[in-house]
Amino acid sequence: MNVKRLTSPLPPGSTIGIFGGGQLGRMLAMAAAHLGFQCRIYTDRADAPAAAVAPATVAEYTDVAALRAFAARTDVITYEFENIPVEATRALAEAVPLAPSARSLEISQDRLTEKSFIRDLAIPVARFADIAGPQDIAATLRTWVAPAILKTRRLGYDGKGQYSLKDPAEAATAWQALGCAPAILEARVPFAREMSVIVARDWRGNSVAYDIPVNEHGDGILRRSTVTSGQVADDITAHAQAIAAKIACALDHVGVLAVELFDLGPTVGAPNQRLLVNEIAPRVHNSGHWTMDACCCDQFENHIRAVAGWSLGGTRRHSDVEMTNLIGGDVENWPRHAACTDTSLYLYGKGEARPGRKMGHVNRILTTGRDVGR
Amino acid sequence: MNVKRLTSPLPPGSTIGIFGGGQLGRMLAMAAAHLGFQCRIYTDRADAPAAAVAPATVAEYTDVAALRAFAARTDVITYEFENIPVEATRALAEAVPLAPSARSLEISQDRLTEKSFIRDLAIPVARFADIAGPQDIAATLRTWVAPAILKTRRLGYDGKGQYSLKDPAEAATAWQALGCAPAILEARVPFAREMSVIVARDWRGNSVAYDIPVNEHGDGILRRSTVTSGQVADDITAHAQAIAAKIACALDHVGVLAVELFDLGPTVGAPNQRLLVNEIAPRVHNSGHWTMDACCCDQFENHIRAVAGWSLGGTRRHSDVEMTNLIGGDVENWPRHAACTDTSLYLYGKGEARPGRKMGHVNRILTTGRDVGR
Repeated sequence: MNVKRLTSPLPPGSTIGIFGGGQLGRMLAMAAAHLGFQCRIYTDRADAPAAAVAPATVAEYTDVAALRAFAARTDVITYEFENIPVEATRALAEAVPLAPSARSLEISQDRLTEKSFIRDLAIPVARFADIAGPQDIAATLRTWVAPAILKTRRLGYDGKGQYSLKDPAEAATAWQALGCAPAILEARVPFAREMSVIVARDWRGNSVAYDIPVNEHGDGILRRSTVTSGQVADDITAHAQAIAAKIACALDHVGVLAVELFDLGPTVGAPNQRLLVNEIAPRVHNSGHWTMDACCCDQFENHIRAVAGWSLGGTRRHSDVEMTNLIGGDVENWPRHAACTDTSLYLYGKGEARPGRKMGHVNRILTTGRDVGR
Repeated sequence: MNVKRLTSPLPPGSTIGIFGGGQLGRMLAMAAAHLGFQCRIYTDRADAPAAAVAPATVAEYTDVAALRAFAARTDVITYEFENIPVEATRALAEAVPLAPSARSLEISQDRLTEKSFIRDLAIPVARFADIAGPQDIAATLRTWVAPAILKTRRLGYDGKGQYSLKDPAEAATAWQALGCAPAILEARVPFAREMSVIVARDWRGNSVAYDIPVNEHGDGILRRSTVTSGQVADDITAHAQAIAAKIACALDHVGVLAVELFDLGPTVGAPNQRLLVNEIAPRVHNSGHWTMDACCCDQFENHIRAVAGWSLGGTRRHSDVEMTNLIGGDVENWPRHAACTDTSLYLYGKGEARPGRKMGHVNRILTTGRDVGR
């Protein structure tokens, strides 16, 4: 396959194609517009959030004619979610530069491939096993004697496609619950906290990383990311950022990459023993939304800069900040959030506030200035 | 005339109509989108900068049918420039709430009306005279014996429609140079510096103001706005903000209002003697672009909040900042600006970089934190 690559920075006025029309695509399109780019969204829904802020091609992700027409109208293509057919992106990549590459996508959209890839980089991950049927679940659980999570290899997000279990007797139920799909079984990690690294890498291999948010989940969905001075020690930050840079480099990733980590806590030992990679996302990430209000150049702008072949923007944080997702009915509280000083409200323009649906987020600035900085 | 008014805050998902498709409309539309609003642009150019980030109605500003159809698709209408036919906005205001009101527009689009209005509020302005012909110019100059500027009453911006003169003998030339249009003659003020106040006022009469930028012009066009701690003394800031609030209140203005001021300097006397109002703009303003990177809620968001009937956002500034316009060929330096740390680059998506055309701006963060604050 003859993959196209950028050979020089795209000038303002060029068109950036964005695969996927959700809130991440919406915020990417606005970041691109601020830099003077045109955008075009590829989405399978006419009412997609991103389609309100940029012209859109509305078609199935498998519609080859539509994909080709889309590629013909763009100078580079990126994506806002990883559950898209790799074949589609490979076809696009022959016509126009694709960033991040199909390889980043291919590895991160299959949990088994992803976990194996990270383990092979000598980066610690939770114990895992390839599961082709209920008998594999039972056999593995008998060996581990530990609580575990069964996860579909593909198409899982926000806690979907997951099943917690401990007893080998639950194997058949778990297998059925996830639709008898190829899966991996992961040992449940007794972590002290969850964190993530948002790293951006350019065509030339330079990378920059943001400060490390501590993330709280509920029902498998990110609820809150907090970034305050001193909450993550310097050596842990440095180690976490090194892990993310190593993964980005091994993928030859171009754009933002998010790496979710488990921190086993200070009783475990040195930094290189207490951090485990949970999963990666080859794109901008919900746990990086705080950068919109606490940094001069946010994750969306850095992603656009990277895919357009520009130099990366600075990641210095000027404020302590807390990002809270507005999930489902949470969005009804918008007047209260709008009335708070030092709070930025972002709403995604989605219609129905279904339970579990990410409707928006708020960034609350906690402190500013010299008291910030590790 | 039966003018519609908002009776309650517009919920997210409502449609905000924006009259005018330039860069101010573009940045307003993006601020509105972040708050979950839909936008619709009314512009007479299909390639208008704002039309790239929101759906647009492309029609003449005098096309009554198009205006009515536009109004029918929006829940509130605002505008990004003041040189639009008042009749058009009055027609719209009967169908849908208009903010700021037609009155704000009417007063600010005629320099004579504007200057008289401000003078009648007992706010100091430069000496001015109504000019109906070259004989008025000559007669006035003989009385003043001072350098003066002839300005068309209508349709001037960025130094266009202005002519500097001193000698009564120049009267005919000046009158011809401005196309023999109704004009005012203003005494040239020996100011120490130019400043502006960006104030936002809501439907209930609450108002908030940002810190005061010091503005530098070249060829009649704003080049740079700087906001640093201590550059404007507390009493001057308070007095300037009070002037702006008084004007906004007298207009019953809803939205952002910009008030340009001459500061005659410290040798003149008390704050209420050294500040003169130069002109006002009933909209977001170029000298407020620095708020995009130095405040949690920028001028565009506060304008949208006001016109949508929301509570106003905080105007606290977290950083010292310098905004520089990219005018005409300046935009060719985008790679250099993009490579600067702590600098945000905004490009407006305009095609040709004609001399004097505002193509973008950069906000450079100078210092952050505790050292900020007067």
